[in-house]
Amino acid sequence: MDIPLPLAAPMSDADADALIRDMGLRARAAATALATMPTARKAEALTRAAALLRERCDGVLAANAQDMARADATGMADAMRDRLRLDPARVEGIAAALAAVAALDDPVGRVIDASERPNGLSLSRVRVPLGVIGIIYESRPNVTADAGALALMAGNAAILRGGSEARASNAAIHAILVEGIAAAGLPRDAVQMIPTADRAAVGALLRAQGLVDIIVPRGGKGLVARVQDEARVPVLAHLDGINHSYVHASADPAMAEAIVVNAKLRRTGVCGATETLLVDRDYPAATALVTALLDADCALRGDGAAMALDPRIAPADAADWDTEYLDAICSVAIVDGLDDALAHIAAHASHHTDAIIAEDADVAERFLTAVDSAIVMWNASTQFADGGEFGLGAEIGISTGRLHARGPVALEGLTTYKWVVRGTGQTRP
Amino acid sequence: MDIPLPLAAPMSDADADALIRDMGLRARAAATALATMPTARKAEALTRAAALLRERCDGVLAANAQDMARADATGMADAMRDRLRLDPARVEGIAAALAAVAALDDPVGRVIDASERPNGLSLSRVRVPLGVIGIIYESRPNVTADAGALALMAGNAAILRGGSEARASNAAIHAILVEGIAAAGLPRDAVQMIPTADRAAVGALLRAQGLVDIIVPRGGKGLVARVQDEARVPVLAHLDGINHSYVHASADPAMAEAIVVNAKLRRTGVCGATETLLVDRDYPAATALVTALLDADCALRGDGAAMALDPRIAPADAADWDTEYLDAICSVAIVDGLDDALAHIAAHASHHTDAIIAEDADVAERFLTAVDSAIVMWNASTQFADGGEFGLGAEIGISTGRLHARGPVALEGLTTYKWVVRGTGQTRP
Repeated sequence: MDIPLPLAAPMSDADADALIRDMGLRARAAATALATMPTARKAEALTRAAALLRERCDGVLAANAQDMARADATGMADAMRDRLRLDPARVEGIAAALAAVAALDDPVGRVIDASERPNGLSLSRVRVPLGVIGIIYESRPNVTADAGALALMAGNAAILRGGSEARASNAAIHAILVEGIAAAGLPRDAVQMIPTADRAAVGALLRAQGLVDIIVPRGGKGLVARVQDEARVPVLAHLDGINHSYVHASADPAMAEAIVVNAKLRRTGVCGATETLLVDRDYPAATALVTALLDADCALRGDGAAMALDPRIAPADAADWDTEYLDAICSVAIVDGLDDALAHIAAHASHHTDAIIAEDADVAERFLTAVDSAIVMWNASTQFADGGEFGLGAEIGISTGRLHARGPVALEGLTTYKWVVRGTGQTRP
Repeated sequence: MDIPLPLAAPMSDADADALIRDMGLRARAAATALATMPTARKAEALTRAAALLRERCDGVLAANAQDMARADATGMADAMRDRLRLDPARVEGIAAALAAVAALDDPVGRVIDASERPNGLSLSRVRVPLGVIGIIYESRPNVTADAGALALMAGNAAILRGGSEARASNAAIHAILVEGIAAAGLPRDAVQMIPTADRAAVGALLRAQGLVDIIVPRGGKGLVARVQDEARVPVLAHLDGINHSYVHASADPAMAEAIVVNAKLRRTGVCGATETLLVDRDYPAATALVTALLDADCALRGDGAAMALDPRIAPADAADWDTEYLDAICSVAIVDGLDDALAHIAAHASHHTDAIIAEDADVAERFLTAVDSAIVMWNASTQFADGGEFGLGAEIGISTGRLHARGPVALEGLTTYKWVVRGTGQTRP
């Protein structure tokens, strides 16, 4: 296997632009072919790739071993090593995900709406692929398959740029994906991988207006922020999840406790985790609620009123209300009714996912209407913020932007639409 | 009336940023109030503004006379003077447009789709306003009312920046719009106008990430290109309309002639005008078709085969195929069947509006599927590319971008959505 390595000398911007221009033009040609590709052919490419991946699991693990050896040599942190590591079960998971994407409903060709004008013109809006999608990600090698598959299934060409620490694993998975694509008779350029670890290539991708239609960064805040800052191409960004669970006075205490503990602690490192608990001053079981979190080894940082509930609650400073802990830490504020909760959320939320726990339906509906977040929930754990849980079958990310697609983004979010007008000779007066 | 004038000294970037920050924060507060404003209240604001505009027509015309006097003094070109000029009929047109926007269906709150998950979670996607919209436009004073009204009716706050040559007219119309807004009890900051003609303020608006959610430029190519180039905020851009009408061999000659003459010549300065005529080599009435255009005083620039049809056809050079004439000029190419037409369109179209004239339905459907433009048409004039003609009631522009909204953009394009999740205590396993 040919593993691309960083160049000895840093790549010049001009060389990087030339590389991306060549890849972009080939991607555009592939995208043109994919735009009218029947669903079954796209699905066949992915199911063939899944079968090949299962067949060649050992080769992928050998490539991954190279990456892990380099990780050992460079003293990579344990959390990152865990993201990088593959084993037979994880390879099977990647294959199963490919097969699952192949089984998703194809949004391309779906009619969004249709009408007939008084002059007899027939209008419809029909979903079409976005075109060329650039995907920039970090150490998880599964993203090579997942993101490439989602882009392809929605009829797009993809240009992938994985983390250099996973380059052998990514190259192995990418080669299998391309082999599946070619075996189904689709263009090999449908999913390309940038063949250099030089960061100049990322810069070139981010400024490739006209060649690349959208960039999807998948990774930590640092990566997403850099991409958003530098990109001249539109970005489908997934930023912080500073999520709130608001326990209203009318909440059922048993439900509130179960939801809040789950929302905070089921997995603390996911973007859907609750980071701030808002407890209504009139909620009668506040002490039991914070005790449940504390007893589950969650550190709490509260305002003065919250601290009065339990001596184990530390004082929150101003920064806490704007912090995504991604850890077993939760900020807690006592609020005076719905309007105070809404004001806190408006001031501090990252517009990702915010929830109310309440038995009072009027209050809950007011919350759902007034909170300006991608996902608003009533009597459910914020940890449900996930494309799979929403029935999308997969997700390429959760968009915290307001344009194009919001919340979990899967196949439909990787399409746009066109207006189709059918006439019988109409001219405009 | 207080007419803001350019500062004697150019504004510093820091001062411009501070101005836009203040306006942006006030716009955000207004947007929060507008997001949950009942349709009737938004409509009332616009109908009150329409009534006030009719009442105060003389004042608006007096303000416009100031702008026209300055235009005389600076020797403004006739076409631009025409765009700037108001008369009683044009003021009535602006008032009527306000009333028409007030009567449009409100997209806010519309449920896009809904589902119930196996665990009982109820999901829906609901339309919500985009937030704060920056609108940058040139000399037409009617845009002040039109764009402000569309933004408001979709529940957004707007920050307007009109051309300095129209500043007295814009200020007069803006004052009336704000008075209507206030009379309906809506926040006055719902539609703000940048109170300086200094261009530094435009730069500040274009980099106001987080304060402004989207910028809509309305004007010529120069304006749109500058906005796209400088903006760090997403842009809903309307660029060239290099539109094609392709006359297939199967086209009905009478229909083809009527459609092509209309598509090219009904109004030559609109973005939906056809700029390139593609005639199939097997189309039997090519000479009559080009004769009809030539006889209607349209200059033709053709490839070799087209030039053979009539001695009045000048040779096209390479740039002609990529030119939006916006004039009574048309490039003409003879193509060898559908695939050749598709290849020409893929190479030269601006992805705005492209049409086929054909009786062969299979060929037409292949064209509609394969052409990657915002609007694709069969047996109709490209001049129908217009929000009003599409039944949208109005338009803020025709998007040639691929993301968020494509083609004519009216109220729905000025909204986004959120996911609303209603549960009964579900926690995620």
